[in-house]
Amino acid sequence: MKIDILSLFPDMFTGPLTQSIVGKAIDKGLLDVEVTDFRAYTTNKQRHVDDTPYGGGAGMLLQAQPIYDALDAIEAKNNGLGKVILLDPAGRKFDQRVAEELANEEHLTFICGHYEGYDERIRARVTDEISLGDFVLTGGELGAMVVIDATVRLLPDVLGNAQSAIGDSFSTGLLEYPQYTRPADFRGMKVPEVLTSGNHQKIAEWRNKEALRRTYERRPDLLENYELSAKEAKWLREFKTIEE
Amino acid sequence: MKIDILSLFPDMFTGPLTQSIVGKAIDKGLLDVEVTDFRAYTTNKQRHVDDTPYGGGAGMLLQAQPIYDALDAIEAKNNGLGKVILLDPAGRKFDQRVAEELANEEHLTFICGHYEGYDERIRARVTDEISLGDFVLTGGELGAMVVIDATVRLLPDVLGNAQSAIGDSFSTGLLEYPQYTRPADFRGMKVPEVLTSGNHQKIAEWRNKEALRRTYERRPDLLENYELSAKEAKWLREFKTIEE
Repeated sequence: MKIDILSLFPDMFTGPLTQSIVGKAIDKGLLDVEVTDFRAYTTNKQRHVDDTPYGGGAGMLLQAQPIYDALDAIEAKNNGLGKVILLDPAGRKFDQRVAEELANEEHLTFICGHYEGYDERIRARVTDEISLGDFVLTGGELGAMVVIDATVRLLPDVLGNAQSAIGDSFSTGLLEYPQYTRPADFRGMKVPEVLTSGNHQKIAEWRNKEALRRTYERRPDLLENYELSAKEAKWLREFKTIEE
Repeated sequence: MKIDILSLFPDMFTGPLTQSIVGKAIDKGLLDVEVTDFRAYTTNKQRHVDDTPYGGGAGMLLQAQPIYDALDAIEAKNNGLGKVILLDPAGRKFDQRVAEELANEEHLTFICGHYEGYDERIRARVTDEISLGDFVLTGGELGAMVVIDATVRLLPDVLGNAQSAIGDSFSTGLLEYPQYTRPADFRGMKVPEVLTSGNHQKIAEWRNKEALRRTYERRPDLLENYELSAKEAKWLREFKTIEE
């Protein structure tokens, strides 16, 4: 996968792109990331990339020109831009399904806004507006990193263990069950006995039930689109009875 | 504000903590951030922080011990931990209201998980589980950075212009209206005439209407809790008529 990033703060990406899973994917040759500081594409002497809004008001807006010219250069070099993604609160909400869609693309180009906002005409060049959630960030950089991380870990051969993305929250439709590792007794808190019983069927059942319980307690909305097995339906009735 | 971060990848924070608004807040003395690599707190010779799950299964889990001991050290040094925040898909969904709540705290401590998951007993030490959204990240680092960025920009004196957080999406209850800056004609795309009219009342009205239109088209759910003015109610009827 090729990822291009347009940002005024290329140094923000140094850590996240060299560490952890994204860094490993680059080292393995599965991913190629290029960060372009679009300030290099301004045509004014002062190298400004922003200006005051038409109609007045506080704050400065990113101008369309440096973004368009940087996109033109990337497009010429790569024979295209792939999906052009803008992180914006008005965009489609990012979730695991969007990450799975993006993981099928060969080329993604992220535009990271900054300052108070950007010239509306930048949107004309964008194929996908994505929102991380109902909150406001200083710039698009962190949002781009989040989308990249969630997407890249789904690429074939990126995660060390082929199984490890399969049991994730959301991939099964339920939240993850509680997990425990050594020691069996930590500061008086003990591991549930079933997990050390060696009875694999009972362990699988306990995990299924606890995943359902956690989802019911914390994210009942996820159950609306979840197809319950007969056993799960019985457990759910049990949880509801306890509450009454 | 004091922020402590527990992470196995402290270098991931170097860029985001030195650039942009968070970096400026630190330079101005409004924010103090300390990143602790909790691998330093392991008590085993190999300096492992993870182990296999009880009951079997793929992947490695973060152990409770290094996290607890690192928290103990931070607590002793700071006479407390403030809010102890874990980024987790099962947590409360992060939004602007959560950012506003956190901005009122004096001390925040973030635990960044990594690998496949963590020992359930770590949750016993946590005051706030927060979810960025319905997607899975490689670790808690990017989530912590997002929460920190959204929170820190709300602290007094952090944003250069006192006005600039007020017009944000979500703070008014509507998405932001389209904005334009120079040039008035960019590659054939022109700025709406009203914005260059100099008529401030008309400009304010146009912006209000376009913010409402964008919210209606893209995030009608936001209008459920929004109190419409008489004029906005009229515009909304107009948008609905156009659609039919």
